[in-house]
Amino acid sequence: MNQPLVALVDGKPCSAAQLEWALDRGLHYGDGLFETMIARNGHIRFAALHRQRLATGCQRLRIAVDQDPLWQQAGTLAQRHGNALLKVLVTRGTATQRGYGPAGDEVCRSVVLAYPPPATTPPHEISVVSLQVRLGENPALAGIKHCNRLEQVLARLELPPRDFEGLMCSSSGRVISGTMSNVFLDTDAGLVTPSLDLCGIAGVMRAVVLREAAAMDIAVRIADVPAAALAACRGMFLTNVRLGVQPVSCLDGRALSGSEQVRALAQRIASLED
Amino acid sequence: MNQPLVALVDGKPCSAAQLEWALDRGLHYGDGLFETMIARNGHIRFAALHRQRLATGCQRLRIAVDQDPLWQQAGTLAQRHGNALLKVLVTRGTATQRGYGPAGDEVCRSVVLAYPPPATTPPHEISVVSLQVRLGENPALAGIKHCNRLEQVLARLELPPRDFEGLMCSSSGRVISGTMSNVFLDTDAGLVTPSLDLCGIAGVMRAVVLREAAAMDIAVRIADVPAAALAACRGMFLTNVRLGVQPVSCLDGRALSGSEQVRALAQRIASLED
Repeated sequence: MNQPLVALVDGKPCSAAQLEWALDRGLHYGDGLFETMIARNGHIRFAALHRQRLATGCQRLRIAVDQDPLWQQAGTLAQRHGNALLKVLVTRGTATQRGYGPAGDEVCRSVVLAYPPPATTPPHEISVVSLQVRLGENPALAGIKHCNRLEQVLARLELPPRDFEGLMCSSSGRVISGTMSNVFLDTDAGLVTPSLDLCGIAGVMRAVVLREAAAMDIAVRIADVPAAALAACRGMFLTNVRLGVQPVSCLDGRALSGSEQVRALAQRIASLED
Repeated sequence: MNQPLVALVDGKPCSAAQLEWALDRGLHYGDGLFETMIARNGHIRFAALHRQRLATGCQRLRIAVDQDPLWQQAGTLAQRHGNALLKVLVTRGTATQRGYGPAGDEVCRSVVLAYPPPATTPPHEISVVSLQVRLGENPALAGIKHCNRLEQVLARLELPPRDFEGLMCSSSGRVISGTMSNVFLDTDAGLVTPSLDLCGIAGVMRAVVLREAAAMDIAVRIADVPAAALAACRGMFLTNVRLGVQPVSCLDGRALSGSEQVRALAQRIASLED
């Protein structure tokens, strides 16, 4: 019952090599994790934070990964290309039995990709819009960067082309994140970023912002953010390792203002390597 | 920015053929759908219901699939093997750009698998246990059989080996389903099966049970089922196309009783082809 009698890929009988892919648990269940990183001047920025998040994800999903070779490969690509966007993907590997339950003897698969570096000058005026698609709440999957990303796929499909990013709420109506970024609101009570205990991805750049803000004596609260806070905030910025700290100029059609504090934070972080 | 400069698979540079798999959106995001079916005497049971659910899933995820070739392939395998378990998997295909958002020009990938038929005599005494892992609620993904299945993977990891199946509640505490089956409770108020508007998979066998129960004048309610209902029900059965109607003999350590009505329903459905 464990191995298929026949396997067709796009209608054609598949080779043994293809079968390894055709039975990958990443393909069937999104049973894997990934990291997206920036290489700059031959060095992976915030490598230790990426490595730590991947380790947490592997532990939570009980995927046994030897991370050393992955980071050697990514490091070599960073050196070779100097500036690049890197993606490391790991899955639990080819299924050794049918069904959702892993047998325990799967061999983890890795994919390491290097892309040309993103444009260094992001769009100047960033327009962000609230989306209808929500994020289901599940503490067992919250925070980690796993490969069950249909909510983000549907969110990107909903996003109007004129907008740079869309904001997503949880099923219980709290603001959580953008489709590909974390979010910080500049409110009358100071900076706040959503708690990610129930859903969302704990971004590496979000962690860097929290760390550097603390070092600069800028208070940032991690809290539940009701959707109503979007209409009340005076400023907002998005974070991910590709964008860094990216101020939002327009939210749901309303102009937002920047702040000296956020500009200083963005500038400080732009020069960091780790 | 769309195509990688370098791709390593398990540490080795990958061929063009491997790259197609390494960039598949199913692998990266679980961006796909599947059907698991039973072939009996050369015929796919309930093929029209499977086809309908896959069509609904493709429409919801906006994956353009020409289903005709898939069902021709599955039908040919059913004829050739007579009795088999079949799986059809479709993904949005190889990514043509980076990121969660599809470009729209991806070419759908299909995998059709035939496995030896499951044992015809399922275990006689079925023990079922309530699990801690919950199902996140998201109406945009509820009902369809998509490839974001980490909740089920974690649930199977939690399931004690002595138990045949585990029951999962939603994040708001309602009973939804087993890890690989739908569930019907036999209560003082008659048969009830959980509503799947917020999470869970709308099983083909569940649909068959609802249809056949109606034909037999057996009332079945579709309703929100609070977790407390588990302690109060007198009987329970699981459904999927592999198990058919499978009575549960023990729930969380408590013996359950069968019923003539459920036995009659199971017997009627066991002989159906469509």
